[in-house]
Amino acid sequence: MDASLSQFFAQVDKDQNIYVDRLREVVAIPSSDVSHRPDVFTMGAWIQKELTRLGVEFEIRDPGTHEMDGHTLQLPPIVLGAYGRDPAKKTVLIYGHYDVQPALKEDGWATEPFELVENEKGELVGRGSTDDKGPILGWLNAIEAHQKLGLELPVNLCMCFEGMEENGSEGLDDVIIAEAKGWFKDVDAVCISDNYWLGDSKPCITYGLRGISYYKLAIKGPGRDLHSGVFGGTVHEPMTDLAYIFSKLVTPQGEILIPGIMDDVAPLTAAEEASYPPLDFSLSTLHNAIDAKNTIHDNHIDALKGRWRYPSLSLHGIEGAFSAAGAKTVIPAKVIGKFSIRSVPNMVPEKIDACVVKYINAEFAKLGSKNTVEIECLHAGKPWVASFEHPNYVAAAAAVERVFKVKPDLTREGGSIPVTLTFQDALNKNVLLLPMGRSSDGAHSINEKLDRSNYIEGTKLLGAYLWELSTKDF
Amino acid sequence: MDASLSQFFAQVDKDQNIYVDRLREVVAIPSSDVSHRPDVFTMGAWIQKELTRLGVEFEIRDPGTHEMDGHTLQLPPIVLGAYGRDPAKKTVLIYGHYDVQPALKEDGWATEPFELVENEKGELVGRGSTDDKGPILGWLNAIEAHQKLGLELPVNLCMCFEGMEENGSEGLDDVIIAEAKGWFKDVDAVCISDNYWLGDSKPCITYGLRGISYYKLAIKGPGRDLHSGVFGGTVHEPMTDLAYIFSKLVTPQGEILIPGIMDDVAPLTAAEEASYPPLDFSLSTLHNAIDAKNTIHDNHIDALKGRWRYPSLSLHGIEGAFSAAGAKTVIPAKVIGKFSIRSVPNMVPEKIDACVVKYINAEFAKLGSKNTVEIECLHAGKPWVASFEHPNYVAAAAAVERVFKVKPDLTREGGSIPVTLTFQDALNKNVLLLPMGRSSDGAHSINEKLDRSNYIEGTKLLGAYLWELSTKDF
Repeated sequence: MDASLSQFFAQVDKDQNIYVDRLREVVAIPSSDVSHRPDVFTMGAWIQKELTRLGVEFEIRDPGTHEMDGHTLQLPPIVLGAYGRDPAKKTVLIYGHYDVQPALKEDGWATEPFELVENEKGELVGRGSTDDKGPILGWLNAIEAHQKLGLELPVNLCMCFEGMEENGSEGLDDVIIAEAKGWFKDVDAVCISDNYWLGDSKPCITYGLRGISYYKLAIKGPGRDLHSGVFGGTVHEPMTDLAYIFSKLVTPQGEILIPGIMDDVAPLTAAEEASYPPLDFSLSTLHNAIDAKNTIHDNHIDALKGRWRYPSLSLHGIEGAFSAAGAKTVIPAKVIGKFSIRSVPNMVPEKIDACVVKYINAEFAKLGSKNTVEIECLHAGKPWVASFEHPNYVAAAAAVERVFKVKPDLTREGGSIPVTLTFQDALNKNVLLLPMGRSSDGAHSINEKLDRSNYIEGTKLLGAYLWELSTKDF
Repeated sequence: MDASLSQFFAQVDKDQNIYVDRLREVVAIPSSDVSHRPDVFTMGAWIQKELTRLGVEFEIRDPGTHEMDGHTLQLPPIVLGAYGRDPAKKTVLIYGHYDVQPALKEDGWATEPFELVENEKGELVGRGSTDDKGPILGWLNAIEAHQKLGLELPVNLCMCFEGMEENGSEGLDDVIIAEAKGWFKDVDAVCISDNYWLGDSKPCITYGLRGISYYKLAIKGPGRDLHSGVFGGTVHEPMTDLAYIFSKLVTPQGEILIPGIMDDVAPLTAAEEASYPPLDFSLSTLHNAIDAKNTIHDNHIDALKGRWRYPSLSLHGIEGAFSAAGAKTVIPAKVIGKFSIRSVPNMVPEKIDACVVKYINAEFAKLGSKNTVEIECLHAGKPWVASFEHPNYVAAAAAVERVFKVKPDLTREGGSIPVTLTFQDALNKNVLLLPMGRSSDGAHSINEKLDRSNYIEGTKLLGAYLWELSTKDF
């Protein structure tokens, strides 16, 4: 393995400008939102052309159509690939998405978003560079480098590339579930490269994501919006009730006040506790990220725990109240408060719902209001956590050490990547999140970038991971 | 007086179809908002043409220009009239506005809003019918009827008609103040016909209005909106702080929690207490008006006191939070809560401000949040109350009895009509609100109407009021 990897690394270094040109080629395909749907198809065709060139078998799964703003639209293809089918080898399923966030120069980009530009800092700036075209190309580059060297990959690769990730991955879950005993039947482990390092200097592998339960809390009073001059002081105002209920959900220190919510939070293990001190993170990283200093905790370890291993509750806003600039003397007739709970293992959406509904109804009853309340969970996703002691993670950690000469951070994320859980539940295999880009890449922002070093070393990392995994028994 | 009034009433009855046609003519001029500014000028010209026809001396005051959406726009003329300058007679200043609320058929009107339609219930449906073209025409009709009869008016009429009432009466205050010792110098009493009966069956005269202090409460946290997955649990969220502060301002029962706010509320006098039982109002009137039953009080008298003689506090909404339909997982970086306090005699805006600022700062300090708070009063208007024992009111009450054979309700209103206070303060004369329309007229709603009977009897009322007033000594 050592010799093969040395050759592979040298080949990647040698071909790096080819890889950058390839990234330029795909960034130029503006495969973003619904207004660019044909470009998403073009990008899907580009992937198929590349798979053909590399000798990867593939099939298309057509997720059908969806409705959007009254139009019926074709969904972009889900591309399933298979590179090698040797029963003696492990089979690794890799996932990536070839659609990107929308981008307009007018949004504040320094350069044209769909023209890859390498700046003096070695950053490859362009929409989709880091999210998620760079990582997809990393896999393809690694295959190409092996082919140029006449080296066989040490594992079989199974692939799943979709074009709707930025819009809810419509149709993907059904395909994954349907192919669990089909295209994906031989998969031993899953690797997703679609997230980011914790900071900007040290790679990480990610073993947990929070879930989410998103609520709509509707309080209804008068039959129509009222003038506060004429009716203020005579009616129970839904906004007043909502402010009371909102104030009973979470404290300004972030403590969730809903009884029962904290009961199922998994205890902190010694192994997890030990994973925090080495992390590439500090309070100032967080302060930079939020462009302020209004953090709850006075140390970065508690802040990270608050981000990813404890639940949180955020009040997002209110539908139906006055929300414009200026002054309007309205008593809104019906207000819909939006809030969500980020959940962690071992919280269960159904139990979260039960706690929320019971508590809010009880608190509302205390108000003595003649208004009515209705609570609805708009969507729920379970939290996810994997064992970082699993060989899939051990292999990834070894690959990081090989490429970057450093032990990776063991991280979780505060948000959710729903496909992670779908793969785990449908295939019942360990899923690894192995990011290529950095915290500062600005995946959904203006001036999205992928550092050249992350792209090139990241390509090595993906290849090295496959070699390390091939040596593991599981 | 009795004989003259009988003749006058008969003439009004006889000419009623002429009056309805005249109302039709002015409703057809869509003198609404800024998009119809030329029509507002057309309506101003119509008034001048009518004043010329009736032999009313008049002058124009040009309030100049204002800025709107980056355009400089000419303000419609303020028309000052004088009909009679007999030093032996009392001089009554009448006010009305010739602009109307915007209206589109698509808003839900049953008929074209700018075509007056008389329905089978005898309602004259059309934008501006009751607010405020009907009342202005009432005054002009009364003059015309006297002229046809060869009757001299028993008072001098001084007039002030504006075209910006629905948009803040821009420029009007300056003119009133400037003309206090000019065009208005001989005024003995003021009468404004621009509000409504308390119910639908009994006329009223209105002697009080609440003031308003409108606040903007800004809470600022992170430098930009954050993703609740990534940052929930790590930062002090401005929405959480705002919910806490909002919940400390007023109870669901409408009690204002800000210390000091209730201190200056004028005590209820025996005369005021005695004015409530005869009122044409019931809880079901209120329930119909709000299209629900979520009233705070279990009797209509307390409800009316809550509407007009006690202060109230309404939470209007939040700027900067998520306000659309659906789900968005945002932690808003800066939220601006909007609330207002309806004030009553003898509350003073400066003292209200002081109480609000002190209390909110104190409550915010208790939160232990690293966010920042800022409170600003966006606008303030003083409450107004007049003595209903003043001869101006006694005359109006007598006129009501003469026309409607019933004692009028003595009402206040919960909202504000700022010009009332300006006239009172600038001229230092008693101001009377003498409405023509009914509670159900829908002044700012779709299908605005003025009942034919209100228009015709209201024309009689305005004339009778002038006769009654001419007999008073003050």
